[in-house]
Amino acid sequence: MPACVRVLGIDPGFGAVGYGVVEMRSSRIDLVSYGAIRTEPQEPIPDRLLKIHDRLEELLLEFRPDESAVEELFFFRNVTTAIQVSEARGVILLAMRRHEVPIFEYTPHQVKLAVTGYGRAEKGQVQRTLKTFFRMEVNPRPDDAADALAVAWCHLTSRKFPGGVRKA
Amino acid sequence: MPACVRVLGIDPGFGAVGYGVVEMRSSRIDLVSYGAIRTEPQEPIPDRLLKIHDRLEELLLEFRPDESAVEELFFFRNVTTAIQVSEARGVILLAMRRHEVPIFEYTPHQVKLAVTGYGRAEKGQVQRTLKTFFRMEVNPRPDDAADALAVAWCHLTSRKFPGGVRKA
Repeated sequence: MPACVRVLGIDPGFGAVGYGVVEMRSSRIDLVSYGAIRTEPQEPIPDRLLKIHDRLEELLLEFRPDESAVEELFFFRNVTTAIQVSEARGVILLAMRRHEVPIFEYTPHQVKLAVTGYGRAEKGQVQRTLKTFFRMEVNPRPDDAADALAVAWCHLTSRKFPGGVRKA
Repeated sequence: MPACVRVLGIDPGFGAVGYGVVEMRSSRIDLVSYGAIRTEPQEPIPDRLLKIHDRLEELLLEFRPDESAVEELFFFRNVTTAIQVSEARGVILLAMRRHEVPIFEYTPHQVKLAVTGYGRAEKGQVQRTLKTFFRMEVNPRPDDAADALAVAWCHLTSRKFPGGVRKA
């Protein structure tokens, strides 16, 4: 295992793509950056996909992650949401692939289990645990960014116990 | 309406993306090119998305379409198919947007109605009609390429009677 591994966690979405950059040096995990890429509902769909792609490319160039961890989505409110989020996911996977960042995927259950020890933990519990892990003053926000930090954490702590599916 | 309009029709998919390039000069519609971008099931998903994106970019540079017509998908065999096809669609819409090609969408019903006069026409009937329209010696093949030609035809003949939803 390399001395330092930097991971970009991604919570895919269409209105908001959460991201979290996390670094592990020896046995210490540090928070580097986190936030969300937002797109406006009134904008045309291809414009929103372009914004997600270009902003993600900026993050890849700025933070140069060694690996990425992406939350896998199973449940959708409706078919339209499933299609839109998957369109955004396609663009996200494309950007990662072009920058040759290996992609690992984890289910929400795997992420919650890795962070809190309980696969059905509530959002608030996940956020409080992340706050403690990363020695933050407040809970990470918004929810999308917190979810991205959680999947990055899950990936780093799962390296010894592989659970995620490597996509590329 | 411009003297000449070149349209790139797309039948989105993951294993095969059908494409058809069609041109209208005054009242005559000609076939320019058609085919399918294929990806291998054993390849990692991000590699397949990259191939779809890069091959589509080559087509955009080679044929320089003025507009694109994309078939909108409603029904899926299962959720996995819906997610995969939508991931490919995201990448397709991104490439079109980056090349500033306006995107129009049509439902399968609109396409069949425009080509055959019957919204529930069978595949064979659509292909035979396209063969006649484009003065081809054999039916257009594979199915994905024929579907792409059909949506391009639908777009050109619908310009007077707008039916498609412009996405961008």
